[in-house]
Amino acid sequence: MTKIGIIGGTGYTGVELIRLLARHPEAELVVITSRAESGRRVSEVFPSLRGVCELAFSKPESGSFSACDVVFSATPNGVAMSMARDLLEAGIRLIDLAADFRIKDVAVWEHWYGMQHACPELLEQAVYGLPELNRSAIRNAMLVANPGCYPTAVTLGWLPLLKAGLVDVNDLIADAKSGVSGAGRGASVATLLAEAGDSFKAYGVTGHRHHPEIAQTLFMLSGQEPGLVFTPHLTPMIRGIHATLYAKLLSNQEQDLQILFEASYAEEPFVDVMPAGSHPETRSVRGSNYCRIAVYRNEQRVIVLSVIDNLVKGAAGQAVQNFNLMFGYDEKTGLDLVPLSP
Amino acid sequence: MTKIGIIGGTGYTGVELIRLLARHPEAELVVITSRAESGRRVSEVFPSLRGVCELAFSKPESGSFSACDVVFSATPNGVAMSMARDLLEAGIRLIDLAADFRIKDVAVWEHWYGMQHACPELLEQAVYGLPELNRSAIRNAMLVANPGCYPTAVTLGWLPLLKAGLVDVNDLIADAKSGVSGAGRGASVATLLAEAGDSFKAYGVTGHRHHPEIAQTLFMLSGQEPGLVFTPHLTPMIRGIHATLYAKLLSNQEQDLQILFEASYAEEPFVDVMPAGSHPETRSVRGSNYCRIAVYRNEQRVIVLSVIDNLVKGAAGQAVQNFNLMFGYDEKTGLDLVPLSP
Amino acid sequence: MTKIGIIGGTGYTGVELIRLLARHPEAELVVITSRAESGRRVSEVFPSLRGVCELAFSKPESGSFSACDVVFSATPNGVAMSMARDLLEAGIRLIDLAADFRIKDVAVWEHWYGMQHACPELLEQAVYGLPELNRSAIRNAMLVANPGCYPTAVTLGWLPLLKAGLVDVNDLIADAKSGVSGAGRGASVATLLAEAGDSFKAYGVTGHRHHPEIAQTLFMLSGQEPGLVFTPHLTPMIRGIHATLYAKLLSNQEQDLQILFEASYAEEPFVDVMPAGSHPETRSVRGSNYCRIAVYRNEQRVIVLSVIDNLVKGAAGQAVQNFNLMFGYDEKTGLDLVPLSP
Amino acid sequence: MTKIGIIGGTGYTGVELIRLLARHPEAELVVITSRAESGRRVSEVFPSLRGVCELAFSKPESGSFSACDVVFSATPNGVAMSMARDLLEAGIRLIDLAADFRIKDVAVWEHWYGMQHACPELLEQAVYGLPELNRSAIRNAMLVANPGCYPTAVTLGWLPLLKAGLVDVNDLIADAKSGVSGAGRGASVATLLAEAGDSFKAYGVTGHRHHPEIAQTLFMLSGQEPGLVFTPHLTPMIRGIHATLYAKLLSNQEQDLQILFEASYAEEPFVDVMPAGSHPETRSVRGSNYCRIAVYRNEQRVIVLSVIDNLVKGAAGQAVQNFNLMFGYDEKTGLDLVPLSP
Repeated sequence: MTKIGIIGGTGYTGVELIRLLARHPEAELVVITSRAESGRRVSEVFPSLRGVCELAFSKPESGSFSACDVVFSATPNGVAMSMARDLLEAGIRLIDLAADFRIKDVAVWEHWYGMQHACPELLEQAVYGLPELNRSAIRNAMLVANPGCYPTAVTLGWLPLLKAGLVDVNDLIADAKSGVSGAGRGASVATLLAEAGDSFKAYGVTGHRHHPEIAQTLFMLSGQEPGLVFTPHLTPMIRGIHATLYAKLLSNQEQDLQILFEASYAEEPFVDVMPAGSHPETRSVRGSNYCRIAVYRNEQRVIVLSVIDNLVKGAAGQAVQNFNLMFGYDEKTGLDLVPLSP
Repeated sequence: MTKIGIIGGTGYTGVELIRLLARHPEAELVVITSRAESGRRVSEVFPSLRGVCELAFSKPESGSFSACDVVFSATPNGVAMSMARDLLEAGIRLIDLAADFRIKDVAVWEHWYGMQHACPELLEQAVYGLPELNRSAIRNAMLVANPGCYPTAVTLGWLPLLKAGLVDVNDLIADAKSGVSGAGRGASVATLLAEAGDSFKAYGVTGHRHHPEIAQTLFMLSGQEPGLVFTPHLTPMIRGIHATLYAKLLSNQEQDLQILFEASYAEEPFVDVMPAGSHPETRSVRGSNYCRIAVYRNEQRVIVLSVIDNLVKGAAGQAVQNFNLMFGYDEKTGLDLVPLSP
Repeated sequence: MTKIGIIGGTGYTGVELIRLLARHPEAELVVITSRAESGRRVSEVFPSLRGVCELAFSKPESGSFSACDVVFSATPNGVAMSMARDLLEAGIRLIDLAADFRIKDVAVWEHWYGMQHACPELLEQAVYGLPELNRSAIRNAMLVANPGCYPTAVTLGWLPLLKAGLVDVNDLIADAKSGVSGAGRGASVATLLAEAGDSFKAYGVTGHRHHPEIAQTLFMLSGQEPGLVFTPHLTPMIRGIHATLYAKLLSNQEQDLQILFEASYAEEPFVDVMPAGSHPETRSVRGSNYCRIAVYRNEQRVIVLSVIDNLVKGAAGQAVQNFNLMFGYDEKTGLDLVPLSP
Repeated sequence: MTKIGIIGGTGYTGVELIRLLARHPEAELVVITSRAESGRRVSEVFPSLRGVCELAFSKPESGSFSACDVVFSATPNGVAMSMARDLLEAGIRLIDLAADFRIKDVAVWEHWYGMQHACPELLEQAVYGLPELNRSAIRNAMLVANPGCYPTAVTLGWLPLLKAGLVDVNDLIADAKSGVSGAGRGASVATLLAEAGDSFKAYGVTGHRHHPEIAQTLFMLSGQEPGLVFTPHLTPMIRGIHATLYAKLLSNQEQDLQILFEASYAEEPFVDVMPAGSHPETRSVRGSNYCRIAVYRNEQRVIVLSVIDNLVKGAAGQAVQNFNLMFGYDEKTGLDLVPLSP
């Protein structure tokens, strides 16, 4: 059993982590902090966890996590970096579900996140926690930067093409649609049911924080500054991301893309390449750690459809997958979740 | 043309009032105040009003409404009462869409609304603005208390039975379901799409502010303290209230209830008694000022189904109906709205 | 391992059964029949089951289930009764998720279901599969009639009161609200998203098939013909039932109802009596086998709120719970499902 | 008053036409046919029309429309073409809301619609009813082909760019998202609330009937066979289309696109170019005839966001706009609809 702490368990990624870890046979959840809810039982804040989690939220303090082997940080951006040094020095591994350690270039990070980075010296050792990309590095990492939800869906959709060098990195369009849980559990007008319900809109067309994160991976894979258009949209549902990805094949490619995708992901437990002609629905992965992908060719254009549950493969599930790798458990442990459909 | 001001036009009742008044041939909207949004154009805050309303929000100040014949107050509870005296003294009529003037008994009001009433001396002259109950008093009123959304749906559902003295006032149950726009446009966690979507719950089972308002009308109609159970529920939709009403017939009633209801509402422009056996859907009144009602008899039990759009007949539409009465216009002016379905 | 067959696995209760049984450590799913989809892989019809279920649908034929220890029937009403005799004679136990064996009185059943019963002689041995009511009989049953979704939510809500004889059985009102998955996966206009979305309505006010089922249990518990009003409603969500139950205490009851409910269900693994003052949300049980209940007293009136997931505790989960009892497994096996929230 | 008939008034475009025409001061609705519902009152099928439309559906027969000046056909594809010749010969003008007369090339039409065209000789005189493109031809047309919903949103989004010759017609991507009412009011599994709710998917990636319709207009405007990718998606809402359009500027364009768009649509009553940086929401046009557009430049890429209500500007509203043009009424008559928001 590995002893686990969670920083900030009151958001959607926090409650989802608890859902997953509570049924993980090798995980023992020992502490969950929350400044706002300290003293209240977790199951009082989240009645769905009645009978599942008996812990109460505690105030974050020095030493809160001293009994832990690993800490998951499920807080807003900027919190994990303030605690990372102390945890790592105490030999406690850290998986950050926020963005503090995702971007290697400090200046880029500080531009997009609007704050000074608290521990830029840790960025180098931080491993970007996309197992399909960095599995072996994750195994040995002390500090894992869990990817963003959009970057997970987008990167997995393009990965086989990029690794094979088949597409023009200067001409990439990611048109992505997310359910509202991606906006978090904070009080806000824009994601009220009466505002976001029964309506659809784009947002962040002039720039979104997940753009540099996706671009960094594209650069790493291609060695080129990518020409990427990323357009996020808000769709009136709770969970799920659907990325519709447009790329152009470099001239004279004759490769069968269906075969390429199937081969690329043949060993991946959580990436499902669907049969040719499929249209993956977000509900087909609801509550599960799967990414389902379909690939189409339209003359020189490749269209990839990629769906995930933003709270699972896009956040808490991927964090548990990383945890399994870091602690030597079977990668699928605790993640044999059948999607809830309908 | 009647000159109109709106206090606090940034909530859902405010934007709905603007929608209705902008197309009302006898209304000229001259001022809309909002402390939070003063200086911004109405259509910037509500893009649905682009091309419809050219006004900007102004700061509420003494004299803001001096050019108005009537003011609609669409603010939270407690604001209208602080301005009522000045408006009335200046000869400006007031229609309050909040609760400040709905309850005649100051102590009851102060208990439920948790504040001291600013002008209890005005309560007597305030007319409860349910046209089907108080049409002639409304015509001459300087001060109209526009009814709450639940009380409108519930009262219209029981009105024919109460007027005819057919039911046991000691044994009334109103099981009511509301869309989330009833909770207003304030930032809140409970009505986020990710919280209130795809889920159903009761709330306020131990007490809701609309209980004393309904009870007051029941008392007025029956002369008895009613035994009323009122259970509100939140349903995952934007607009609409569905009240399911249970009452017991006093012994030996043989009256045909369908005929009673049809006769009671024969002259009412906005109450539609549906054919026997109907199940009114909230969407059948979406965006319109109708209340649709079906009545069933099950031995000694009467079950009434009553639906309204909470923002129209339950708020802004009823306010316009009252306005028409107060200023001598045809009661339906500006309210010939066809429900939006689907 | 127990060998299992499913009749008619293409509806919502079918796919939900597969979701649960696929992860049940003692269940081996060996055959799933479907006349319409025979030959197609289950995971082709339900992509959420890709990687979870490798079976294909087969045509229902004599001998289809000869290798099975138990068969779950997830078909429309009227199918299970045509196969029951053969299965039972072959020593194969049967759990019917439809209504064929729920009502003991053949005439009542035939009236409500509009067909002749194919094997009335089996009704006596059929056990009504509500574990909280009939646990020991279920253990030995060859034939289990899995309760309807509404009856489960309603009966569990009233059970402690009825067993204790505290309420007037002549004056019971069940105002129940269901998500649309309760209407099944058949093509229909009424449950299109464009029809049932963003709207709320009652239906079946003059009579619903679950009325006699609830009434039968009420009679069994009280020895009296109940006076029951049951009003089902359709709410714009996918899963979930919320029953709001109104009963009257017999005179001079001083019993603390919270204590009564907690004691009644103390040993029940799937009934959760929430703290006094709670408002259970349907999403708090989404995807799980829990029934969560809150009880309120309002003078002589008792109001109970009871929520279930109609496809789990209201159908497939309860069937698995019955299966566990019938085959001597721990009742919770395969049902340690954490609700999906948000 | 112009006398109007509707063929097939039981789908969503039919009921929407009735909603609009019932309040149109120059329209007199005299006959509505429906084979399936003949004899039933319109308001019985659509309770939202109670008190609005007193007609009953009649069986379509020879002579049904002899009293009409114009007929709107709101049937499935293939019906209008079977009646067109007779109507036109009788001097009755025809506005077809289906696809029968949208495509000039008979072979292309027959390929995509899978049937033989009944009156190819009428295609030449049929005017494609997009007023922003063909206003003067519409005024004189006997036969108007009302555009498809997706083509309306897409074409209006690109029109200023195409007219100005600014973009590469070989590299156009239209990523479009539609609410489910676009799929019509027929019974179907795929658009059940339990299937399409809380989920998102693409469909028709390998080909959709609106592709040739869009391509035809692109060709007409540019004189080139366009290279167009069109990807439709289903989003869990009732009304609305959001088109996200990607195009590449031809080299060295320095034109200010915001100014171009504003100038292009300055005189258009129903196209609203929003301020730079806006993100139009579909609900901002709900129930209205507006198309709202925002334009962004990202280096050489132009991104246009275009939203309409698929049942209004994408169907019935545009048909009424065409009707106004054809009969010499002010183009906005009967279309001064304020969007319903929230």
